[in-house]
Amino acid sequence: MKALVYHGPNTKSLDEVAKPAIIDPGDALVRITHTTICGTDLHILKGDVPSCTPGRILGHEGVGVIEYTGSAVTSFKVGDHVLISCITSCGRCENCRRSMYSHCISGGWMLGNTIDGTQAEYVRIPHADTSLYPVPAGTDEEALVMLSDILPTGFECGVLNGKIAPGGTVAIVGAGPIGLACLLTAQFYSPAAIFMIDIDDKRLATARRFGATHLVNGGAVDAATAIAALTNGRGVDTAVEAVGIPATFELCQNLVAAGGVIANIGVHGVKADLHLERLWSHNVTITTRLVDTASTSMLLKTVAAKTLDPAPLITHRFALCDAMDAYDVFARAADTGALKVIITP
Amino acid sequence: MKALVYHGPNTKSLDEVAKPAIIDPGDALVRITHTTICGTDLHILKGDVPSCTPGRILGHEGVGVIEYTGSAVTSFKVGDHVLISCITSCGRCENCRRSMYSHCISGGWMLGNTIDGTQAEYVRIPHADTSLYPVPAGTDEEALVMLSDILPTGFECGVLNGKIAPGGTVAIVGAGPIGLACLLTAQFYSPAAIFMIDIDDKRLATARRFGATHLVNGGAVDAATAIAALTNGRGVDTAVEAVGIPATFELCQNLVAAGGVIANIGVHGVKADLHLERLWSHNVTITTRLVDTASTSMLLKTVAAKTLDPAPLITHRFALCDAMDAYDVFARAADTGALKVIITP
Amino acid sequence: MKALVYHGPNTKSLDEVAKPAIIDPGDALVRITHTTICGTDLHILKGDVPSCTPGRILGHEGVGVIEYTGSAVTSFKVGDHVLISCITSCGRCENCRRSMYSHCISGGWMLGNTIDGTQAEYVRIPHADTSLYPVPAGTDEEALVMLSDILPTGFECGVLNGKIAPGGTVAIVGAGPIGLACLLTAQFYSPAAIFMIDIDDKRLATARRFGATHLVNGGAVDAATAIAALTNGRGVDTAVEAVGIPATFELCQNLVAAGGVIANIGVHGVKADLHLERLWSHNVTITTRLVDTASTSMLLKTVAAKTLDPAPLITHRFALCDAMDAYDVFARAADTGALKVIITP
Amino acid sequence: MKALVYHGPNTKSLDEVAKPAIIDPGDALVRITHTTICGTDLHILKGDVPSCTPGRILGHEGVGVIEYTGSAVTSFKVGDHVLISCITSCGRCENCRRSMYSHCISGGWMLGNTIDGTQAEYVRIPHADTSLYPVPAGTDEEALVMLSDILPTGFECGVLNGKIAPGGTVAIVGAGPIGLACLLTAQFYSPAAIFMIDIDDKRLATARRFGATHLVNGGAVDAATAIAALTNGRGVDTAVEAVGIPATFELCQNLVAAGGVIANIGVHGVKADLHLERLWSHNVTITTRLVDTASTSMLLKTVAAKTLDPAPLITHRFALCDAMDAYDVFARAADTGALKVIITP
Repeated sequence: MKALVYHGPNTKSLDEVAKPAIIDPGDALVRITHTTICGTDLHILKGDVPSCTPGRILGHEGVGVIEYTGSAVTSFKVGDHVLISCITSCGRCENCRRSMYSHCISGGWMLGNTIDGTQAEYVRIPHADTSLYPVPAGTDEEALVMLSDILPTGFECGVLNGKIAPGGTVAIVGAGPIGLACLLTAQFYSPAAIFMIDIDDKRLATARRFGATHLVNGGAVDAATAIAALTNGRGVDTAVEAVGIPATFELCQNLVAAGGVIANIGVHGVKADLHLERLWSHNVTITTRLVDTASTSMLLKTVAAKTLDPAPLITHRFALCDAMDAYDVFARAADTGALKVIITP
Repeated sequence: MKALVYHGPNTKSLDEVAKPAIIDPGDALVRITHTTICGTDLHILKGDVPSCTPGRILGHEGVGVIEYTGSAVTSFKVGDHVLISCITSCGRCENCRRSMYSHCISGGWMLGNTIDGTQAEYVRIPHADTSLYPVPAGTDEEALVMLSDILPTGFECGVLNGKIAPGGTVAIVGAGPIGLACLLTAQFYSPAAIFMIDIDDKRLATARRFGATHLVNGGAVDAATAIAALTNGRGVDTAVEAVGIPATFELCQNLVAAGGVIANIGVHGVKADLHLERLWSHNVTITTRLVDTASTSMLLKTVAAKTLDPAPLITHRFALCDAMDAYDVFARAADTGALKVIITP
Repeated sequence: MKALVYHGPNTKSLDEVAKPAIIDPGDALVRITHTTICGTDLHILKGDVPSCTPGRILGHEGVGVIEYTGSAVTSFKVGDHVLISCITSCGRCENCRRSMYSHCISGGWMLGNTIDGTQAEYVRIPHADTSLYPVPAGTDEEALVMLSDILPTGFECGVLNGKIAPGGTVAIVGAGPIGLACLLTAQFYSPAAIFMIDIDDKRLATARRFGATHLVNGGAVDAATAIAALTNGRGVDTAVEAVGIPATFELCQNLVAAGGVIANIGVHGVKADLHLERLWSHNVTITTRLVDTASTSMLLKTVAAKTLDPAPLITHRFALCDAMDAYDVFARAADTGALKVIITP
Repeated sequence: MKALVYHGPNTKSLDEVAKPAIIDPGDALVRITHTTICGTDLHILKGDVPSCTPGRILGHEGVGVIEYTGSAVTSFKVGDHVLISCITSCGRCENCRRSMYSHCISGGWMLGNTIDGTQAEYVRIPHADTSLYPVPAGTDEEALVMLSDILPTGFECGVLNGKIAPGGTVAIVGAGPIGLACLLTAQFYSPAAIFMIDIDDKRLATARRFGATHLVNGGAVDAATAIAALTNGRGVDTAVEAVGIPATFELCQNLVAAGGVIANIGVHGVKADLHLERLWSHNVTITTRLVDTASTSMLLKTVAAKTLDPAPLITHRFALCDAMDAYDVFARAADTGALKVIITP
């Protein structure tokens, strides 16, 4: 089969590789119908993710059809349409039993990282019963690819951890796909204001369409000053970090009101300064989280109920044979306007 | 001044009475600009509320302007526009300190009950600092009258107690003003479905305009069967009782899913059957609550942010001199289509 | 093998039956080392539990050793010492994913009810990975039998649902094994007072030894009056119903303070009166729950840490061949002083 | 009257000053019967707290008797014995209404900071109704001084924010008075293990007496390695920072398990490193808080119920005329073994 394979820093290619096989009784083999590329895949290609070694098929998002099931799989049968979670969960270990699937002892983020991923014609899914979700009949399956990772990530790490609530104020720092996923799902809770902060006016314009109430271009104005003005000097109830660098995390510390939350979503490569000399008495909460995808069932319901429409996150579409082009378009997002690119085997 | 006075069961009149005066240093005198009638006022007129004795000025809702403040009032000054909470709260007792203002030791539901109320030109407000709210500049003050009682009641007793959540299913039994207030504020949390149950098709049609996703006329079909069909036999996550009779409370017990909540808003005059022989193992929660108006500040923010529009709850308007007509129209709601009637002194 | 078999109302016998075999790949076969009798077993024998049909081996509690595992079992191997949960959980269905194992779509209370149970030499455990718990090395295995059912039941249905908290007041109505299990685990949260109410002075004396701060014999005094006197007329923050009849549920309604919780544990055979005419404005929460055993891991840690000692719940010990005597002693608890009886195959 | 007055960095004296008078109608004048010294007072004396200016009477803890009340005070009368909260709360502003008294708009930490404090014969208490607590009859009033600040601080900032729970594991870094206050109140929730970390074996020995299950001398062994060994490499559910320097905050980051909480109590003078390059995916929560004293009523109940005994925190006693000696003994705690010193006017 064809697959997009990582060959070490800055090296990838679309290769012909062996179709995967069932290894464990709990495995399922899924024929991919739609997959996509994540910012994390770009991190891997920079060599930033040592757990992902050369030879690995990339990708941890996708929708497909069950091709084969191991003997222990009870929830799915051949032909079922399924959503693939980016997080593999055994459903048995202590972390899974407390819904912290991201730290499953025999799971977690494996796909396209420590085992072969979804940017291929087929993928093997361990712990299939608890790592796949049935696609409701009549759903736009392409749009569901957004539920493999970015929508639960924006929702769990940003919205839930950030305790976004009716009448509250929210600042989201970073209007990339993950910040926009947070923006979309923040509206589940009807905050009074959602301030979107980015340095790219095109992305800010997208944020406006996606429901942001106020836009702040942090390259043009001082974002902390702007937010202070917009909140009568109080700051925001929730500041979401959706970039992953020290400067934006520091900005969040300047935005958050006493009693508020800084919810980190960004993937950080270096440490950041924490201004405890000011924050120690500020009654703030700071949260970090690798998405657990514990909200996937709920998000599927919101899509079915049309209270969430993931489709606008998709900007480009490619056949798997053009996956190298897809990577190029996605990596040059500032020029191409790419948010999420769908790849179809 | 003119005031609507209760003179015993089935007797009321618009009387000329003395203007109230400050009694305690924490009091404020408010000139009423808009008030309204509550279903509870009709209960009083039936003689159902013994704490309300003849001679009492009715009314516990309203917006007005501060005319005078006692020496201990620090949060308001003469001329301030204020929203009157139906619940009087001292802010000092143990119940107030835990935000259960409804059970304030020297407050609670006093207005138009144990002290004179708001259906008058002026009203004395005890514990003014913690029982009035400043009206934000530029707000539609008439619409704010809906925040004195019914919107916090629908929200606190129905939505918050009912743990309404994104992707969840909600049944609201009773599409009167309080059920509709619950319906409006339920949408803060983006449930997947809101089933509105009533026996009046006109009220159901109103519920549709207010955001109900499904309508069930409980006079025409068996509501429990209908909801079972709509939820794949599962039942709803939240059943809100907004009528106040044993039959509707019993219906809620037939609607709620395992793990769900029955949130009672209705004012009940008699006991109801609780089917513990079935529910004991059903993992349900049943809540009751006299509104605390602890959410009033938050609701004011949602109105300012235009995520909540109370105005459509208002169907009729009267001058205070026509208050007897206002009562008539409100009492004959089935005929007149009245929801909330505004009375303007 | 030997097993205690239900043969219809009021009929049971110790029979020689076939040793169970693995049916599903997720099953484990457990050799029982210790089991016990539950009040629910007596209900079955009265014919009150129609789901349990003649021919069924009774018992849903026990500790044992893994004798054999199905091909899909990954968490246990032959020879492992295990605690058997009274609730069977697949770990995969939507209810299990939200930790409501009691309503597992292919599990729930099955043992000694819809499949053969633990009062036998061997038992087949479906969904073994998520329905058994490893026994920590060095633990008193006999005492752990209390963690199959009554301790998680008392804790989840009474303590957690009852929101027992430091400084709070608690009334537990019923000082049988389940009420005592609630009493033991209530102390995890350091309430200021635990009032134990029963009509048997011997059980009340046991409650004193188990940590009750005040005893009320409801046969000798009016319990509601007594509790009012003990709480300055306020009532209790948490009232736990641990009997299962209308009178005790009604008593709880007279004990609970405004803002408090009535946590039902009792198994009810008939409906009860709910005094909504008083409680509608009382800000109370009423909860019901079939134990989920979601707290079992946590309880095992408290036993290991010696913050919980289940051993005093055990009053009698029998060999399996004397199981008929064990039932007799347990059924005549008022005379024998029996709390929990251990049966050893 | 006599009072301990701050005269600028490193300068204080016991002076004869004017007795305070009522300024606002909500004030009360309290005759101090017992007061104490806090580590924060030493910070002020180092010149670290610019809001505290020369001429200020120090002290924010104490118990006393109402000498006089302003005209708006309704909850207290002359002669009442009262506990003084270190936090002044108006009970009216938005922050007070959400129980975040520490950020009261006209209150917060004022005593011995921005207004004269309690190390004197008399003190003026603004917002007396909501900043004083009645002393229950029969209480050891000296011991209650521990409830002015350190016990609510340890409980709210450490125990509540740290989500300490039955069966959990806790590490407290710093065995000074505030760490010990956290240790005492952590036991309300029956954690399985409380690891106390300090570099002073005497303080660790005290921690043992106060209920620590394990002691780690961070000067003698590597604390992170020791805790890893004690938790099977997992880390702790709750790490409490009770020192206030970057090194101990960094240590907490090395102690906390995935899914755990770092609860900061320490007063920090400089920023700290936050290792987001590791923690971003570790599902941790970090909290900061200036004590709100929202738990004071509850703590008074635990003292009355004898589930909390504050007395052992008191090591020395002085008359007010010897307050300079009291400071000396308290400042040289490593030599003197001082925890809290009581000063009696």
